[in-house]
Amino acid sequence: MNREEALLIVKEHLTEHRYIHTCGVMETAIHLAAKYGADLKKAEIAAIFHDYAKFRDKDEMKEIILSHHLGDELLEYNAELWHAPVGAYLVEKEVGIDDEEVLEAIRNHTSGKRKMTVLDKVVYLADYIEPNRQFPGVEEVREMAETSLDEALIASLRNTMTFLMKKNQAIHPDTFRFYNGLIFDRRS
Amino acid sequence: MNREEALLIVKEHLTEHRYIHTCGVMETAIHLAAKYGADLKKAEIAAIFHDYAKFRDKDEMKEIILSHHLGDELLEYNAELWHAPVGAYLVEKEVGIDDEEVLEAIRNHTSGKRKMTVLDKVVYLADYIEPNRQFPGVEEVREMAETSLDEALIASLRNTMTFLMKKNQAIHPDTFRFYNGLIFDRRS
Repeated sequence: MNREEALLIVKEHLTEHRYIHTCGVMETAIHLAAKYGADLKKAEIAAIFHDYAKFRDKDEMKEIILSHHLGDELLEYNAELWHAPVGAYLVEKEVGIDDEEVLEAIRNHTSGKRKMTVLDKVVYLADYIEPNRQFPGVEEVREMAETSLDEALIASLRNTMTFLMKKNQAIHPDTFRFYNGLIFDRRS
Repeated sequence: MNREEALLIVKEHLTEHRYIHTCGVMETAIHLAAKYGADLKKAEIAAIFHDYAKFRDKDEMKEIILSHHLGDELLEYNAELWHAPVGAYLVEKEVGIDDEEVLEAIRNHTSGKRKMTVLDKVVYLADYIEPNRQFPGVEEVREMAETSLDEALIASLRNTMTFLMKKNQAIHPDTFRFYNGLIFDRRS
């Protein structure tokens, strides 16, 4: 599937605002993939489809999570996290993408997990820093992304976890493990 | 064992500064125990002995953790965490305190854990807010401690985890579980 075909498919599932974000993630993911040695084509496709399920009905997402065992504990955490594993499931089922590395990058783009591939990390970080993102601290992470993938991820996770704690929200264990894992990895 | 005997024993193991801190924790723990319904005497004894192992040699602590299986993974985290389980072990062995609730409060006073008793929480929080503590945010937590034990703990954990992340340090999983557990508990 080429870029134009992929964008055409995803556009139908997104708001205009989210489509612009997706194009930003695509450009940023390709840039980071080239810099850090991930497959450019896989980064492009994973980025284009990363928010495929973003606007699905919550009950539909819940049903998919339960019936396909995408992690029942996920339902105890913020519904904002659900579209990532549901997206991976639907992109395979509805769009026919069966590249497990691409699906995994879509699956992990919101919660993260302990062991992320470079492709997973590239899509996760691109989602956080793409040019249309505007929030306190994003510029610092953008700059870090030019010199170290992992340092930029640590900074983004610090921001995200601090943000959740300020709102008295639970943090998904995979996000915590992603943070701690990066800290352990940088020591070794 | 009465208060004077206990303080006399612990004084030998602490610096002057840490002894003054311990007396502050004792007073605060008794105050919080009375407010939130923990056993006053157990709160007093646990508070007095909470830092019993604080100044033990690191190699000795490491040896105790390994030989008595106090949680090998603990050695991967900041050594500041070691004195809590080692303290519980040594207070039983050297001082002869065998009240499991008191030992548990000593054991959990630094990392926390998912399910803390009221006594555990009282000692944990007293250690954080006793009058000699001076750091940004402590006054806010002191005020919260007068109206809600759990809300004050959530605020203290937010501060602690944010502090660790600012220093690019790993967070012990028990501390993370303590935070997330309090968030889940307040929902129900």
